[in-house]
Amino acid sequence: MSTDQSNLEAFKRITESQPVLTDIKYAHEVFPSLGTRHLLHAGPPLKWEEMCGPLQSAIVGAILFEEKASSEEEAWAMASDGRVTFAPCHSMGAVGPMTGIISRSMPLFEVVCRSSGRRAYSTINEGLGKVMRFGANDHEVIALQKWMAGVLAPAIKQALHRRPIDLKQIMAQALCMGDEMHQRNVAASSLFLRSISPGLVGASIEKKTLVEVVEFISGNEQFFLNLAMAACKVMADAAANIPGSTVVTAMSRNGTDFGIRVSCLGDQWFTAPVETPQGLFFPGYSQEDANPDMGDSSIVETVGLGGLAMAASPAVVAFVGTGKAKDAEAITYEMMEIAVGQSPYFRIPELDFAGVPTGIDVRRVVETGILPIINTGIAHNKPGVGQVGAGVVRPPMQCFVAALEALVEKGTSKY
Amino acid sequence: MSTDQSNLEAFKRITESQPVLTDIKYAHEVFPSLGTRHLLHAGPPLKWEEMCGPLQSAIVGAILFEEKASSEEEAWAMASDGRVTFAPCHSMGAVGPMTGIISRSMPLFEVVCRSSGRRAYSTINEGLGKVMRFGANDHEVIALQKWMAGVLAPAIKQALHRRPIDLKQIMAQALCMGDEMHQRNVAASSLFLRSISPGLVGASIEKKTLVEVVEFISGNEQFFLNLAMAACKVMADAAANIPGSTVVTAMSRNGTDFGIRVSCLGDQWFTAPVETPQGLFFPGYSQEDANPDMGDSSIVETVGLGGLAMAASPAVVAFVGTGKAKDAEAITYEMMEIAVGQSPYFRIPELDFAGVPTGIDVRRVVETGILPIINTGIAHNKPGVGQVGAGVVRPPMQCFVAALEALVEKGTSKY
Repeated sequence: MSTDQSNLEAFKRITESQPVLTDIKYAHEVFPSLGTRHLLHAGPPLKWEEMCGPLQSAIVGAILFEEKASSEEEAWAMASDGRVTFAPCHSMGAVGPMTGIISRSMPLFEVVCRSSGRRAYSTINEGLGKVMRFGANDHEVIALQKWMAGVLAPAIKQALHRRPIDLKQIMAQALCMGDEMHQRNVAASSLFLRSISPGLVGASIEKKTLVEVVEFISGNEQFFLNLAMAACKVMADAAANIPGSTVVTAMSRNGTDFGIRVSCLGDQWFTAPVETPQGLFFPGYSQEDANPDMGDSSIVETVGLGGLAMAASPAVVAFVGTGKAKDAEAITYEMMEIAVGQSPYFRIPELDFAGVPTGIDVRRVVETGILPIINTGIAHNKPGVGQVGAGVVRPPMQCFVAALEALVEKGTSKY
Repeated sequence: MSTDQSNLEAFKRITESQPVLTDIKYAHEVFPSLGTRHLLHAGPPLKWEEMCGPLQSAIVGAILFEEKASSEEEAWAMASDGRVTFAPCHSMGAVGPMTGIISRSMPLFEVVCRSSGRRAYSTINEGLGKVMRFGANDHEVIALQKWMAGVLAPAIKQALHRRPIDLKQIMAQALCMGDEMHQRNVAASSLFLRSISPGLVGASIEKKTLVEVVEFISGNEQFFLNLAMAACKVMADAAANIPGSTVVTAMSRNGTDFGIRVSCLGDQWFTAPVETPQGLFFPGYSQEDANPDMGDSSIVETVGLGGLAMAASPAVVAFVGTGKAKDAEAITYEMMEIAVGQSPYFRIPELDFAGVPTGIDVRRVVETGILPIINTGIAHNKPGVGQVGAGVVRPPMQCFVAALEALVEKGTSKY
């Protein structure tokens, strides 16, 4: 197979993947090797001392959540002296937004690809405000995590056992409803609640719990983000390890480095120092509060959603330049330059139902100089403050150049 | 005040109206004068012998639902010999889609304008298929109406007492999510379920009932249509009876006539024979099965939604010409020619957040020759078959000409 043929195969596997939400399981059930002192984080691998403040702070939160330390000080000591170890979520087939911490007692969504049987996992979205994914770790944050693990997850699990949820269908529909599935998930979150509510009310759940659960899901317009991420992870993984394919299978950030993976190069990360997103800030905050780019959420861009599907979401375009619908369309058209094809399933009404640009080709990124655009939340660079804005960011070109060099060395690419 | 000033006042009252869903009540509670043998129907007034088949057939269904006849034959006899009498829903401040039948035991949504205290009412949407609003009247249809009156309505009532629902907010949001609120209500219906579900699960509702209710609402993507209609009725009524205003305050059809009302001309109807919608048909049906245009649902166009907001809903544009997003935009721009202004609250992302064309001015319709466009379901012309398609229709120009003549006679307009 030529590289182009390999890339078409990658494109086909991404677009024909059929992610379905089937279950919620605790991380230790899914990853038996995930010990009590081993944590997963967003982005490519890095050492404790290389981590940004919010990531370190979220790790401390996870240690406290796991009750492995009795004070914040003790948790900091354990994390910094090597008693706690770290690996990327991606190394386990999982994804987490922002700091993306996964510890063994956390509940994870299990998304199964109906066509391949492949699985992927993500955490449950905590909602806005002071939350662990933005590096907060106080009592309330831990209490919310405990409630999610002890109350929310078992309820959702019951509902899913009665009726699994077709995520691909929700995503296709939400894309026709103004969501690009990264910055904006209001349609998908509403459709998700509509899908799960019959299962929830039909399950054996105590009334008080049912009210809390429904309030929690209905109160969070970004609830679907983590589900979109797990769905996109399954889709992207379907394109991994195809001999000769130069298609990007992961883009991710840890607040220090940006990393990409490429199909025929397997699990290898190509990293470079991460950029800081530009965007709009909540009242009282400004660009100088912005933490460098963070999170596995750019898995949605990896398969053609988020920034690549900007045209679907004129409401998000306020974060980009002049805020005109035409600008959003221009971005999606630009992204088509670096993509293998347009999804036959994820289509954008505003572009007369053209498909989203899918299958980012490392060669084209370097050739054209066009970098993928990523829509993202912006964390405060001080731990514990939380989200301070939202905006856009591009990966560093060095990641793609390094990957291309590896491809050339391997003989896959002639450039 | 000049006519233009009066029309600006009408525009202001429409756009500043704040419809909130506060309750569900039985028709006899709301309209004590609605006797056991008096029925309300969609559109302007007409006699039994002038009614189309589906309307007559729905009336028979309502008589059976009220248990005023023991057989279909007896019900037909009662309806045709004057033992049952009829009036438009609009005459009572209510609206109903398609045949729009309201009888005294039917539950009605009560929508209150938070700014004026004004109220409007609509029936609950029955879902697709064989339903009374399309003229079906067999056992299943009556059983569904009984369930809605006896089970669904009390459950929704409890939920609303816990938490009324801001319809204006849902409508503004849904307009940014691909709904135009007539042909397409999937976003609004999902947002509605999201809003009401905490109230539903928190109410004292038996589990079996709760499951049925949630399944029913979540299973109907047009559930919100009737709510949009009641909200639009409150908004349109806010503009009624303004001295000197030539703004249209109702557009409605009964399957025989199309009728409009104009602000300064009060409750008077200006009617002309109705058109038959052109559109797309479900498999097995074609244009020759189409019943002439029917229903109060064009109240949504009266205040700038539905066909007038076509640009918001590229997915609906398949019903119109080439099915390109540009065609949808062109329709909304055309509608701006006959409207007093653009709503500051209902905005369309695809048009860079321009507001929907609001306040149809009778003078401009006649001057420009541009008729409002109405998105609509299409009923089979044989009673009991139900919906066979969906499409678009324009009102007959004679209604507007007759209204303008009345305005000239009154001295309101110089034309």
